[in-house]
Amino acid sequence: MDEFLFIQWIRNRQKKSKNVICGIGDDCAVINTSKDNLCLITTDMLVDGTHFNLKKHDAADVGRKAIACSISDIASMGCKPSVAVISVCFPQGTKNNFAKRLYAGIWEIADKYAIDIVGGDIISGKGPFCINVTMLGKNEGLRPIYRSGAKAGDKILVTGKLGGSLLDKHMFFEPRLNEGLKLNKNFTVHAMIDISDGLTADLNHILEESGVGAILFEDKIPVSDDALKMSKKTGNTALHHAFSDGEDYELLAVLPKLQAKKVQTSGLFQRGTISCIGEIIEDHGIWLKNLKGKLLRVQPKGYKHS
Amino acid sequence: MDEFLFIQWIRNRQKKSKNVICGIGDDCAVINTSKDNLCLITTDMLVDGTHFNLKKHDAADVGRKAIACSISDIASMGCKPSVAVISVCFPQGTKNNFAKRLYAGIWEIADKYAIDIVGGDIISGKGPFCINVTMLGKNEGLRPIYRSGAKAGDKILVTGKLGGSLLDKHMFFEPRLNEGLKLNKNFTVHAMIDISDGLTADLNHILEESGVGAILFEDKIPVSDDALKMSKKTGNTALHHAFSDGEDYELLAVLPKLQAKKVQTSGLFQRGTISCIGEIIEDHGIWLKNLKGKLLRVQPKGYKHS
Repeated sequence: MDEFLFIQWIRNRQKKSKNVICGIGDDCAVINTSKDNLCLITTDMLVDGTHFNLKKHDAADVGRKAIACSISDIASMGCKPSVAVISVCFPQGTKNNFAKRLYAGIWEIADKYAIDIVGGDIISGKGPFCINVTMLGKNEGLRPIYRSGAKAGDKILVTGKLGGSLLDKHMFFEPRLNEGLKLNKNFTVHAMIDISDGLTADLNHILEESGVGAILFEDKIPVSDDALKMSKKTGNTALHHAFSDGEDYELLAVLPKLQAKKVQTSGLFQRGTISCIGEIIEDHGIWLKNLKGKLLRVQPKGYKHS
Repeated sequence: MDEFLFIQWIRNRQKKSKNVICGIGDDCAVINTSKDNLCLITTDMLVDGTHFNLKKHDAADVGRKAIACSISDIASMGCKPSVAVISVCFPQGTKNNFAKRLYAGIWEIADKYAIDIVGGDIISGKGPFCINVTMLGKNEGLRPIYRSGAKAGDKILVTGKLGGSLLDKHMFFEPRLNEGLKLNKNFTVHAMIDISDGLTADLNHILEESGVGAILFEDKIPVSDDALKMSKKTGNTALHHAFSDGEDYELLAVLPKLQAKKVQTSGLFQRGTISCIGEIIEDHGIWLKNLKGKLLRVQPKGYKHS
């Protein structure tokens, strides 16, 4: 079965009551729980052998990553995380020390971002180690930023550098929570997503939800050193890795032209943190303006876990 | 590792900020998300081979059970479920039809109780089929009922009949949502829990959180027909099965004496739905008054999944 098609199938069939402002199909769902506040909710399941490898990775780093992924989802809505619940399936015979290391990693990052772990479920099973984090977020008077607001003429910004995350970053990334909040508090952001599937795949999510297309400028893409390293291993270009590796957990944001300019001159972000990599156009699809100024069609490709 | 000891270890170390009214250690966490409403949250992970068996059970029944378990947790707080997010790990090579049957079961019970599925995560892995449900609930002006309010002199009530759930009921139980809400709306309930670990184990959770003990009356325990059937198979008494099988998903409620009497004469519950099975005492521990009127000490034993 195809994961994306199946989610689409669910989405088309799911009823939506009036208190559900945003249901299936964005980084978080947004619920109207009260008069003065919105409640954001996101859930992520990570399993050994797919999202990390316990032969290589320490339990503390796995716990940290599980929490960081959910923080990144809330960051991409421009909102703030508040509490989380964690389910863990430990393989039979798991040692106490492993479980304690896991929680050390969970608490390290949860404390850093003032997130309370308020509950969970602990089971043991025959399968591999598996962890699920559900995190709630709050909007604190801000408007959550969805995938669906991009308009022709808008600029496309991205935080950090892209590609080659498999070498290291996919385990140790810092979720862009502060950047997401700063963008939402100080600027008009039309659409935002975090890059988990890959730049072109996640850009494509924004384009599809917004009914628009995009041009990316090859000379503006912030290609990471690890994308270069990967390209030497694989024979693919570093740009290819920046486009499709995924698990960068950077923010991809779409803003009106003048707002995008303001972001870059605001002094609110460290130099080099935010790049303007392209613009939104009416015609559907993704195009690349290469170094010679030629427009090439790009197929949205991303890392697929399954 | 011991699941209960590890949860205790986590609980002792987890920080708790002022918006967390109830954190780890009850059926749901309770969060102060706004001025006018409380937010309840519960999470449950179910895995093939432990909580169900896909060689025997239909995917739709598994989906239904996963949702029903979370509803039962919110019912045991006397509150109302609102939305849920669902993570699923499908074993590699899972057929589309299986996934669709799973969601048919999920929607059947979610629609019945007006719960919106607002998001999720779908992955595939090398291990067995695994599903995690996180459900939010709302208090709608009611006070959530915790495990910790039982007082000496209170009466112990239970819904339905107990024991032998493994034969059938653990897959097909109806969560006692209406009963939980009726109890909370119309009576003073000091403590409540749903019976997932087993009558004596879950009663013990209430007793430990409340710092009290209990006497159960053998002649008042509602022993199910399936507990009788099981006793013929195992050689244990039917009472033993009613005490310790678990996964009954009935409600165990503790009320002041006069309130408990009112529940039974109120006409709000179908005849036979609610039994008064014992009373709370100051001395710690669980005692059974047997048919001969003799007091016997009972060790809290429950079904442990892991």
